[in-house]
Amino acid sequence: MTMTDKILARIDAGLADAQLRWLDWLRIPSVSAQPAHQADCRRAAEFAAAQLAEMGFEASVRDTAGLPCVVGHHPGPGGAAPHLLYYGHYDVQPAEPFALWTHPPFEPAVVDGPHGKRVVARGAVDDKGQVFMWLTALRAWHAETGTLPCRVTVLIEGEEEISSANFKSFVTANRDELRADIAVISDTGMWNIDTPALSTSLRGIVYVQVDLKAADHDLHSGIYGGSALNPINALVVALGQLKDTDGRVQVPGFYDGVRDISPDRATQWAALGYDEAHSLGNIGLTTPYGETGRTPLERLWARPTCDINGIWGGYQEPGAKTVIAAEAGAKVSFRLVPGQDPDKIVTAFQQFMQDRVPPDAKLSFQVFGADAGIEIATDNRFVQAACEALAAEYGRPAAFIGCGGSIPVVETLQHELGLDTLLMGFGLADDQMHGPNEKFEVRCFHKGARSHARLLGALGA
Amino acid sequence: MTMTDKILARIDAGLADAQLRWLDWLRIPSVSAQPAHQADCRRAAEFAAAQLAEMGFEASVRDTAGLPCVVGHHPGPGGAAPHLLYYGHYDVQPAEPFALWTHPPFEPAVVDGPHGKRVVARGAVDDKGQVFMWLTALRAWHAETGTLPCRVTVLIEGEEEISSANFKSFVTANRDELRADIAVISDTGMWNIDTPALSTSLRGIVYVQVDLKAADHDLHSGIYGGSALNPINALVVALGQLKDTDGRVQVPGFYDGVRDISPDRATQWAALGYDEAHSLGNIGLTTPYGETGRTPLERLWARPTCDINGIWGGYQEPGAKTVIAAEAGAKVSFRLVPGQDPDKIVTAFQQFMQDRVPPDAKLSFQVFGADAGIEIATDNRFVQAACEALAAEYGRPAAFIGCGGSIPVVETLQHELGLDTLLMGFGLADDQMHGPNEKFEVRCFHKGARSHARLLGALGA
Repeated sequence: MTMTDKILARIDAGLADAQLRWLDWLRIPSVSAQPAHQADCRRAAEFAAAQLAEMGFEASVRDTAGLPCVVGHHPGPGGAAPHLLYYGHYDVQPAEPFALWTHPPFEPAVVDGPHGKRVVARGAVDDKGQVFMWLTALRAWHAETGTLPCRVTVLIEGEEEISSANFKSFVTANRDELRADIAVISDTGMWNIDTPALSTSLRGIVYVQVDLKAADHDLHSGIYGGSALNPINALVVALGQLKDTDGRVQVPGFYDGVRDISPDRATQWAALGYDEAHSLGNIGLTTPYGETGRTPLERLWARPTCDINGIWGGYQEPGAKTVIAAEAGAKVSFRLVPGQDPDKIVTAFQQFMQDRVPPDAKLSFQVFGADAGIEIATDNRFVQAACEALAAEYGRPAAFIGCGGSIPVVETLQHELGLDTLLMGFGLADDQMHGPNEKFEVRCFHKGARSHARLLGALGA
Repeated sequence: MTMTDKILARIDAGLADAQLRWLDWLRIPSVSAQPAHQADCRRAAEFAAAQLAEMGFEASVRDTAGLPCVVGHHPGPGGAAPHLLYYGHYDVQPAEPFALWTHPPFEPAVVDGPHGKRVVARGAVDDKGQVFMWLTALRAWHAETGTLPCRVTVLIEGEEEISSANFKSFVTANRDELRADIAVISDTGMWNIDTPALSTSLRGIVYVQVDLKAADHDLHSGIYGGSALNPINALVVALGQLKDTDGRVQVPGFYDGVRDISPDRATQWAALGYDEAHSLGNIGLTTPYGETGRTPLERLWARPTCDINGIWGGYQEPGAKTVIAAEAGAKVSFRLVPGQDPDKIVTAFQQFMQDRVPPDAKLSFQVFGADAGIEIATDNRFVQAACEALAAEYGRPAAFIGCGGSIPVVETLQHELGLDTLLMGFGLADDQMHGPNEKFEVRCFHKGARSHARLLGALGA
């Protein structure tokens, strides 16, 4: 029996205990967006620090200008073993609306599903559940060997769900302390429950709110209709031109730097056999709504998009009110792919709007994000080791997949610490992240912990 | 001294008393939109009925399926005198937001202004103040002569501010009782404080809410962006095509039946010397926003429009949320001119939207109004008498003006009772109807009452 086999056996034997600890963490409503839960956030941080201390880490809860970070250091075996930086977050999305939950979101329920037991709770998967997978792997190694096979630094933040407002400055201020050879994050998904995956690209995002002001107060449309600027009409005219009928974004320069995917990648993705009709059918739709002439996975992972995430103006209550509003607004976001320059796109979008509104329309903008798309390096020994660990655990090779979402932290770790990131996640598409009845399959948790244990063993060998 | 002179002298002498009664009526918060004020609405109706009884009317408060109507009958002198139907409404708009009022809206204040005293209160002008003008004229005639110079029926409704929901059925059910030779309404404006006016056209209105549903729940734009229909994007694309760059409405058939104004009307309107730049300047704007190639008064009175009165969808709170909403909606209205068919425009608009949304967009519509524009006949003795009364009172001829708003009651009276309407109003553009600090100039009230008294005298002669 190899050491790794012993570790895996220990994880299997300790699964019930691990689950109890994980559920205790889920009971702490660490909702970063809600000030009423500030103390809960600190409790969740202290819980994580205590876990780390139990497995030989020098761990502490560290203040930031916002919610605290947890930092832990384990020297590992010394020698040539690599130094891993595990990143995760203990904060969770608000659970509202509570009425849509089948179980109270902060009283984790273990229920039966098609894949066996699953845990239903806010944070079940995002990210407490995935963090607890690698904590479980680290605990098993420590319990079995009294140390870890690699040097490990842990960094768990508390503001990931509110744009990691203070994360970058914390990393910058603690740059020397946080240096490592590779970052490891479990905050992404598998291809499906039987097929593990490494995410090799992330889309970036530009998120801008545009406000359009017209007259200095609301007007009666009978008195002013035909003479006074209507800000809603003006706004929809401009926003309505954002894409052409082929779904291509019309902001000048938007596609500058966008590259087609490589033939290798195209082959890999084709082999995944993605069924878009099935995926759309699951959400009540039938017809793809994106750029024409691109495969579904290109549209989701390798092509930039434009979505209006919110819009408002005038009378929104039941019935009729004949008002010409004084102002209207919208939130517009662009998912970006590597090669696009987020700052240029912010500027180009502002100009695009300015060019399309009438003289009296006073535009103002708030930028809530401008992060580039990220390509993850796959030509290093860490990716190689992860592929081997996943293949050993699942009996089939890991898929290299894209991620349509954004994890700006990856850019911060690259930029501030010079670290590549290994994105090895175990979530499933139906995990309801951010929604009611968020869940995590116990099978994913278990095999995720085993995969992390294998990776540690392989890298430390 | 003619009889009319005696009546006018009586109005002058009784102005302070009339004002006291008018203010008592304004103190009753008869807000038809708010169920909490239902009893106040009935009190306001009873107040009006009591006024009528004091001047020899057989008057009663009559139930409807909603708020009651006041009906009063005065036989007049008999003989060949014409039969007038005075219409008004005792209900008022909600006064919210109260914080914007300089005085409590239901504690009328008499304050100084550039034109002398003015009354500030909800309903000061719309329509309690204007109704009280003609009640004052009727009272003066009755007090002086023991009768009225014409046969008079009064009809005061309580749901004008909530679309006169039960008015039509009330009129239909009481058709015989309400017959007359002409309807008289004071619910419009003067050209300016020195220039009286008769309104000779009203725009109609089509008001439609459109809802667009996409996926069966809100989606994460990182996961679905590029594949799933975004209902806000789809909605703005369709709504953004409602007008071309010349401000012409693009709904097929929209201009069917629209006629250019007559040369006479064009000459009359040109003579009014309307200063659009000044009017727009008063509301913080500089540039007309309507159909190109039309004069300002044509755009306001004689051309149809399209205004989006409300729009909503997705995330409207501070900050960023990367959501693809499940649905979005808007309220769209069209002001119509005589000749346009409202029902055809409702259908054409629905088809316009249907033709412009993607396959998965599920559209639904709610129609909150479909009323035709109205041309008021000016070739009758009532208009002639009103012109003479106004010219005598103001020392200058009355202007024939258009009205950009809609008074669907006029259509009901035409359709159900076969009545033309005399629209003789004394409001000013800055009276803040429907807004905070609604006011009515005492000078307008006073000369309005005198003008009504003159009209009664002229018609009864």
